[in-house]
Amino acid sequence: MSDRRTGGRRGKSARSGGGIEQLPWQQVRNPYPGFELASPEEMERLHATSMRVLSELGIRVIGDNVLDLFVQAGALVDRDSRIVRIDETLVNAALATVRRTFTLTSRNPAKRIEMGGNALNFGLVAGPPNVHDRVNGRRSGNYTDYCNFIRLAHHFNAIHIIGNQVMAPVEMPANTRHLDTYLANLTLSDLSFHCTAIGRGRALDGIEMMAIARGQTLEQMATDPGVITIISVNSPRLFDDAMGDGLIAMAEHGQPVTITPFTLMGAMTPVTLAAALAQQNAEALFGVVLTQLVRPGTPVMYGSFTSNVDMRSGAPAFGTPENTKANIIGGQLARRYGLPYRTSNSNASNAVDLQAAYETMMATWGAVLGGANIIYHAAGWLEGGLTASYEKLVLDVEILQNMMEFLRPLDVSDDALGFDAMAGVPPGGHFFGAAHTMERYETAFYRPILSDWQNYESWEAAGAVDAAERATRVWQQALREYEEPAMDPGIREALEAYVARRKETIGSGEP
Amino acid sequence: MSDRRTGGRRGKSARSGGGIEQLPWQQVRNPYPGFELASPEEMERLHATSMRVLSELGIRVIGDNVLDLFVQAGALVDRDSRIVRIDETLVNAALATVRRTFTLTSRNPAKRIEMGGNALNFGLVAGPPNVHDRVNGRRSGNYTDYCNFIRLAHHFNAIHIIGNQVMAPVEMPANTRHLDTYLANLTLSDLSFHCTAIGRGRALDGIEMMAIARGQTLEQMATDPGVITIISVNSPRLFDDAMGDGLIAMAEHGQPVTITPFTLMGAMTPVTLAAALAQQNAEALFGVVLTQLVRPGTPVMYGSFTSNVDMRSGAPAFGTPENTKANIIGGQLARRYGLPYRTSNSNASNAVDLQAAYETMMATWGAVLGGANIIYHAAGWLEGGLTASYEKLVLDVEILQNMMEFLRPLDVSDDALGFDAMAGVPPGGHFFGAAHTMERYETAFYRPILSDWQNYESWEAAGAVDAAERATRVWQQALREYEEPAMDPGIREALEAYVARRKETIGSGEP
Repeated sequence: MSDRRTGGRRGKSARSGGGIEQLPWQQVRNPYPGFELASPEEMERLHATSMRVLSELGIRVIGDNVLDLFVQAGALVDRDSRIVRIDETLVNAALATVRRTFTLTSRNPAKRIEMGGNALNFGLVAGPPNVHDRVNGRRSGNYTDYCNFIRLAHHFNAIHIIGNQVMAPVEMPANTRHLDTYLANLTLSDLSFHCTAIGRGRALDGIEMMAIARGQTLEQMATDPGVITIISVNSPRLFDDAMGDGLIAMAEHGQPVTITPFTLMGAMTPVTLAAALAQQNAEALFGVVLTQLVRPGTPVMYGSFTSNVDMRSGAPAFGTPENTKANIIGGQLARRYGLPYRTSNSNASNAVDLQAAYETMMATWGAVLGGANIIYHAAGWLEGGLTASYEKLVLDVEILQNMMEFLRPLDVSDDALGFDAMAGVPPGGHFFGAAHTMERYETAFYRPILSDWQNYESWEAAGAVDAAERATRVWQQALREYEEPAMDPGIREALEAYVARRKETIGSGEP
Repeated sequence: MSDRRTGGRRGKSARSGGGIEQLPWQQVRNPYPGFELASPEEMERLHATSMRVLSELGIRVIGDNVLDLFVQAGALVDRDSRIVRIDETLVNAALATVRRTFTLTSRNPAKRIEMGGNALNFGLVAGPPNVHDRVNGRRSGNYTDYCNFIRLAHHFNAIHIIGNQVMAPVEMPANTRHLDTYLANLTLSDLSFHCTAIGRGRALDGIEMMAIARGQTLEQMATDPGVITIISVNSPRLFDDAMGDGLIAMAEHGQPVTITPFTLMGAMTPVTLAAALAQQNAEALFGVVLTQLVRPGTPVMYGSFTSNVDMRSGAPAFGTPENTKANIIGGQLARRYGLPYRTSNSNASNAVDLQAAYETMMATWGAVLGGANIIYHAAGWLEGGLTASYEKLVLDVEILQNMMEFLRPLDVSDDALGFDAMAGVPPGGHFFGAAHTMERYETAFYRPILSDWQNYESWEAAGAVDAAERATRVWQQALREYEEPAMDPGIREALEAYVARRKETIGSGEP
């Protein structure tokens, strides 16, 4: 960890040394109660409809192992249709063993993050097949860019966790690339990460490699988790076998799982927001129940990813008013069940432009007001998730830092109320040179990494560089400033050996 | 009023005819209680400090007429220093006669707007010396562009009221240009407007011209106001004579006044947010008291315009986290005193770029969460208020429409909960063709005016037009589609005659 990150509220060396000045690493906390968009009565109607979905319509499950668990638990299981129906009793039993809060510990214990309560974390974009920057244009995901994004996630203190493959490194074999990406996550950053839970093997590899990086056994990891995954229900109401296997592998090892139905209104759910939320809720709770059937006490998060489609084209839309509301009500539902809450701040723009900014802001405010514990895809998401963007990552870090400062509690101490300072300046005067100002001006206000507050003439004389172009300069500078976090050579060797061994074992044998 | 604006939730003719599809004219309502950022104890400390500012430090007043009013009211007035000190009793007496809510009626009674309660209105940008669009670049304000902005304000239903001179038409004489701008406001739109209250004459001209446009007497206008103004205290603690005269003229005629201290932290107030808010509050309440001394029951709004400066350059910054918090706490203060609330959603960007978008969004969310009754400068503000921007106006209309849809109450009727629709689609299926979808898809979701949700390939094939360039196309199309609202020829003649007569009277005699 460089000095920049250890120096008080804002890094001293950055301030004096000309580096990118950013907020220090911190566990962000949201001091405000969640926004109550839906009334208690409306919440009850959403809940009741979800319960009807679970008990009357049920969820179709592909994996026999999952079906067996529900049979043992006394659910109504139709082996022919593979439909599982559960009632509220089973839901309540699961909710009795979930944890209201848990932690994720990376190889750097100083960057342990909390999920639950008023903790708020920001995740790197996950999953795009493509990558874009304004210098080199749009291209397929690849390992070089993958590694650069991990470096940026490490460098920017606003990013708390690495999502599931910031982009697909498509030049690598599909059945082993997770090993290379885990290795990059663990060596180029010191953050926790999301391991791919498509099937059992990828999940276990993530758990094992984090354990190696931490110098711990799997048993130690089970009581102090270090990786997380997301299980995305195939909405409507379908739970496939790879998801089931991944969930079970994580839960058996005490690693947290987020259940996130992917529910685009009008496509995977009815076109109405209330229906989408009721369905999302049923599907999420079904996954929550499964985690507790595997291992009671498994850390599990409630995930919301409800947005709408463009009804003209069927294309997904994000950062819409409907998505914003869903982010808020998703949080109300998570709190109702005492579950930590995951949501996102996505957008559907094809460029890092005004649309990317306002859609991201709509969704971000929804997520923050909704009391999110993690905003997934919070940095770098573009094109509805089809592209990881360098400039978008910088824009997002700026937005996230704005929110971090917004969430900093108000100070109404006598000092802050400044009566004496007011008394010291005559009517019509100014406070620029006042002692009260001089003592505080360096840290009084948030200093943005992307905004330019010069007057027009100075800005024009300096080349009239707009914010998108400035974003290019910021990520380029960040990569120059990046310092790889130190790692014990023995641990690095062990990680590399694990990857080599597993690649040999997998060969072309695993999907 | 064209058919477009009368057709249900979204204009039918726009939908079928290929025009810009926008939300219909509406009194926006914010169904949520104001966000409580400051605790009750913190609010008390802000209030108490404001009372100390008013009773111990006082406000310097230039106009003898204002001093006289305070002397009569029993305030502590020092004629030498011109400092007026008032105590809480005087504040409370004023708050006993203010109105919690009032209306503004333009020449089109269908566009009457409410100020107070849960009503939310959006105002056109006011005051810049410059104008910009991406086709013609940056230039001085002028009457041609002035008129275009009024056309756009009339065309876009999200804009409820015209602010104080959307730009200065600098080619016109400074002492009579208010007459020309009022004439444009009244003939090219049917909205209420803000009249300039720098001195008595400009205020009275606005009141008289609105009365003519409505075919009413000044007495009728006094009980059903039609214009509004803003009195900007010269912070810290200075109330100049032109402001006093303007306020008195408006109040005498029963027209509403907004008291908005212009309080940039670190410049016009101490550098701390709590101090800035305490000072803002003292100054705003002083103006409120004055309105009630002139004429008890005068409609008056609490204005907040607290942001910070860039401590590196002293340049004003807007849309910062501090500004966002101030917008929210300003609303808490206004509610504490039972006053309608005015705030803004400004930004400090030099271009219609990412910065303009995210800063505007920060401030807009602060304003909406703060329970604003009017967001002033809501459409078209750029460069910290030095430029009125065509593309920014389009971006802002998109943002405002997003907020309008966000504020639309949730529907949890059985229909919206859609259980039967869910039952009708098998696991893993989709809802695109479902009857529940087909019946609702045309109006289910907000349709943006600026966002492009095509996939990347289609977007690229269509020219890879980014949102700023699309904004240019939107305002150009809006000007093509604009229809001047009908006006009785006799009224038009009377307005023109008034302007001619007043220009002759003023000559070069008024400042």
